[in-house]
Amino acid sequence: MSAKKAIVLLSGGVDSATTLAIAKAEGFDCYAISFAYGQRHAVELSCAQRVAMAMKVSEHYVINIDLTLFGHSALTDYELAVPKNRPDLEKHTQIPITYVPARNTIFLSYALAYAEQIAAAHIFIGVNALDYSGYPDCRPEYIAAFEAMANLATKAAVQGSAVTIHAPLINLTKAQIICTGVKLGLDYSVTHSCYDPLPNGTACGACDSCQLRKKGFAEAGVPDPTLYGARRT
Amino acid sequence: MSAKKAIVLLSGGVDSATTLAIAKAEGFDCYAISFAYGQRHAVELSCAQRVAMAMKVSEHYVINIDLTLFGHSALTDYELAVPKNRPDLEKHTQIPITYVPARNTIFLSYALAYAEQIAAAHIFIGVNALDYSGYPDCRPEYIAAFEAMANLATKAAVQGSAVTIHAPLINLTKAQIICTGVKLGLDYSVTHSCYDPLPNGTACGACDSCQLRKKGFAEAGVPDPTLYGARRT
Repeated sequence: MSAKKAIVLLSGGVDSATTLAIAKAEGFDCYAISFAYGQRHAVELSCAQRVAMAMKVSEHYVINIDLTLFGHSALTDYELAVPKNRPDLEKHTQIPITYVPARNTIFLSYALAYAEQIAAAHIFIGVNALDYSGYPDCRPEYIAAFEAMANLATKAAVQGSAVTIHAPLINLTKAQIICTGVKLGLDYSVTHSCYDPLPNGTACGACDSCQLRKKGFAEAGVPDPTLYGARRT
Repeated sequence: MSAKKAIVLLSGGVDSATTLAIAKAEGFDCYAISFAYGQRHAVELSCAQRVAMAMKVSEHYVINIDLTLFGHSALTDYELAVPKNRPDLEKHTQIPITYVPARNTIFLSYALAYAEQIAAAHIFIGVNALDYSGYPDCRPEYIAAFEAMANLATKAAVQGSAVTIHAPLINLTKAQIICTGVKLGLDYSVTHSCYDPLPNGTACGACDSCQLRKKGFAEAGVPDPTLYGARRT
């Protein structure tokens, strides 16, 4: 019997690379999908390609979509600064300016179309509700609601092929995620986390995403392979 | 008090034009969104623009997205023929080959991002569960599930601004839709329905969408302003 097909959302960061490693370890035949959406850290896409190749996915689409139209996010609008050195990230309650409106909903919708095209009944997404940035579309109740909607949306669903949205990291800390990836042989040096990389592609070390990454590697007791550069001011 | 903002999905066909007319009549400040998704009837987009101008929307985005990647639809794949002269459309039970995987989910996801950007709490979509083509993403239960998901997906939702998905045509026949539009002063000559238009842009008269349109105008007792051409064979 051939392996079950799965679509894996792949950004090129720690979480999605680990999610892909988990899906592979669970025996899925993986098809990756990434998005060039106007993000200022588009360098993550070359990391996504390297991760996809290293993990031997069966196919990898990089979809061009323009989310800068519906902006108000520091990730897509160069006039908004990416917050740096915010203290106590785990205690914040406000959704930060790096939130991109409806981003995961758009990404998962494309994944759903892709799943239907190749008759895949599984979609993997690396959202995480613990060491995350407070985005609403990373919460378990959101993922459950998307799955319920997806199972009414498609021809495949009507014909009895339910789709399952897997979020294997949802209750893990960043350190636990990194330990999981290391156990699965994942090389994190090909991943990228920084929201606001330097012109040479190295990480700023100060944005929320860099902070979460650094803290995760430190707590996991794993050397962080990231090149952190210093921005000239 | 200023009018409430609404996003209206606008294809350029009878249903979405009528939906826009209803939203306007209900006093909404309307923002239209259309999609160039690789459809073979891209002529509908110039109709969408004419409808948007005629209805004096506040803004109209035409978003370029490529759904041909996730094909298997006669609307986006020129190697698949658009079915013609299918009898008894209202009795069919199979989802036709013109179904585009996850199309309404992708469209509504963009509308959700747009709504969040402009702080609109309303999205209008012209889906219809009676005189329609049997698409799963046109059913009331699908719309309700999308709304439930949307209200967990966004920063706006978390902050207490619920979004409502309006589907005012969902229980109307095509004839009732046309009568509604006529009462609201809508000029259907600027709309386009045909899935497989002739090179000169006129309608084939034989695809499911043309058949539903013809039947609707006939049952409504309203002259059909459509130019139906004959394809050279």
